[in-house]
Amino acid sequence: MIKLFDEIRSDLEIVEAELLEVVKAPDPLLTDTATHLLKAGGKRLRPAFSLLGGKFGDFEIKKVLPLAVALELIHMATLVHDDVVDSAMTRRGVRTVKAMWGNKISTHIGDYLFGQSLILLSSYQGTMIPPVLADTSVKMCEGEIYQISASYDTDQTLRDYFYRIKRKTALLISASCQLGAIACDAPPKTHLALRRYGNHVGMAFQITDDILDMTAEQTRLGKPIGGDIRQGIITLPVIYALANSADRDHILHLINKENKSNEEVFEAISIIKDCGGLEYSSRIAQRYISKAKQELNPLPDVPVKETLKTIADFISFRNF
Amino acid sequence: MIKLFDEIRSDLEIVEAELLEVVKAPDPLLTDTATHLLKAGGKRLRPAFSLLGGKFGDFEIKKVLPLAVALELIHMATLVHDDVVDSAMTRRGVRTVKAMWGNKISTHIGDYLFGQSLILLSSYQGTMIPPVLADTSVKMCEGEIYQISASYDTDQTLRDYFYRIKRKTALLISASCQLGAIACDAPPKTHLALRRYGNHVGMAFQITDDILDMTAEQTRLGKPIGGDIRQGIITLPVIYALANSADRDHILHLINKENKSNEEVFEAISIIKDCGGLEYSSRIAQRYISKAKQELNPLPDVPVKETLKTIADFISFRNF
Repeated sequence: MIKLFDEIRSDLEIVEAELLEVVKAPDPLLTDTATHLLKAGGKRLRPAFSLLGGKFGDFEIKKVLPLAVALELIHMATLVHDDVVDSAMTRRGVRTVKAMWGNKISTHIGDYLFGQSLILLSSYQGTMIPPVLADTSVKMCEGEIYQISASYDTDQTLRDYFYRIKRKTALLISASCQLGAIACDAPPKTHLALRRYGNHVGMAFQITDDILDMTAEQTRLGKPIGGDIRQGIITLPVIYALANSADRDHILHLINKENKSNEEVFEAISIIKDCGGLEYSSRIAQRYISKAKQELNPLPDVPVKETLKTIADFISFRNF
Repeated sequence: MIKLFDEIRSDLEIVEAELLEVVKAPDPLLTDTATHLLKAGGKRLRPAFSLLGGKFGDFEIKKVLPLAVALELIHMATLVHDDVVDSAMTRRGVRTVKAMWGNKISTHIGDYLFGQSLILLSSYQGTMIPPVLADTSVKMCEGEIYQISASYDTDQTLRDYFYRIKRKTALLISASCQLGAIACDAPPKTHLALRRYGNHVGMAFQITDDILDMTAEQTRLGKPIGGDIRQGIITLPVIYALANSADRDHILHLINKENKSNEEVFEAISIIKDCGGLEYSSRIAQRYISKAKQELNPLPDVPVKETLKTIADFISFRNF
């Protein structure tokens, strides 16, 4: 994906340097863990979207920089907090956690990164940026909690699933696109279209992630295949299979099991594949991609407009 | 303490009602856990300080209400996150956690409460309130992380201890006093004095807590005595004893032990008491109380001025 960002490469390098600067703290433990976390990488997708959004306005890196850095800090904070494990929940599914640090430090580091993002956002007081991100951060938590309360709930609907992934993934990507434009004084018509673009791309991105969880090679994904099924997280392919597979009772039984063997996980994935759950999910992702690209059509023909379309296509391209 | 708040009783009731309103969420699990947390009580010290601070300005409840609610949400978020336990750390000391929820939910609930506070603080855009609280929240995390990295560090100095408790406790109380005044348009001379008052009271409050951890009856404290010693948290009485006790080597040995028996904890407390560690700590707390009250002298003689002095005295009164 990184090749797509050529137009903002030098700006992304500034973001990267600033990220490392921001997490320096008086306490070496804090600096070391936060720096390690940053250097562990990441696609910097949210900063990139904010920079690209900014290109639809009167772009200056200094206008977007605090926002771009803040967005990545917020994203990283949610990742670290997502790594906090409930011992009562590892019973369900064999969750493997890259436990570099313990739960307690992860919690505080996440809070610290989030707090640093707030300091950066102070420079946008009086704009929509702080309230939009406040609202987004609350809704992201709602999504996380809902994912826990809805795990192993095989009665959940498509609507439940979309509600959840919108909060979990789409809203922050959506905000990244919109707020980058706002930071560079783009007019409402533009930043609202970018917000919708980001939402659709974010939805497609999460659906694709949920598909990849069942199809990717383990080495590429960096984690064991079928992680969602192991944890009882009901994703789109599962919802489809529960509604459409001839083996409904069997897959229901497999999904509901608290401790699944590898064979049981593979069997569940196999049933989902056989009934067309992955193709269906892929089609839904593709529909979001189309909607995303359509949102861009009325926008001014700045060079990054094509980049945003290519990024959208790339997200669906990585489907299988 | 609650009797001291008579002048703001009705306002505190409004804060209480608003707190319950704010945590209502679409997901019952989220609403239930957050509501349970609220109803579990707490002294609402930070909202009270913000209301009292507001009385030094042109007080209107609607001006302070979002701030007062936000302060309690931030405080609660830190409490919930502080309850997240690292299994690797329960090895050290017999930490008892009121584990109503697991780690994962605690993390997300904390984030949710914090996020809700940000939404409330949006109404203060353009004032010092959001940046001061952003800065405070980062420093609070620094304090928490530092407490972890400094645990079992018997070489730490008084300076280390004050650095830590300032971040852990004093800064948010300090901000509560100051920002309540700012929300009600009190002049800088006033809100800066209140900030210093809050800092001194907060320092005394935490020192007193650290003393009570060694002296209070278990039923009153609601947790086993000597919790800090069990967890390797080096507090003021310990630092004093390490520097002044004739039994230095023995207490050093006891403090450094990872798994302490009840007898060993009591023995350590007994050495600390014998060498005057509690009286010393109490004198330091008392000095902060005096400084806090002095800060109030130049301020206008509004009725709550005496209340703030009484609150300061109450904090030192509960020393033994």
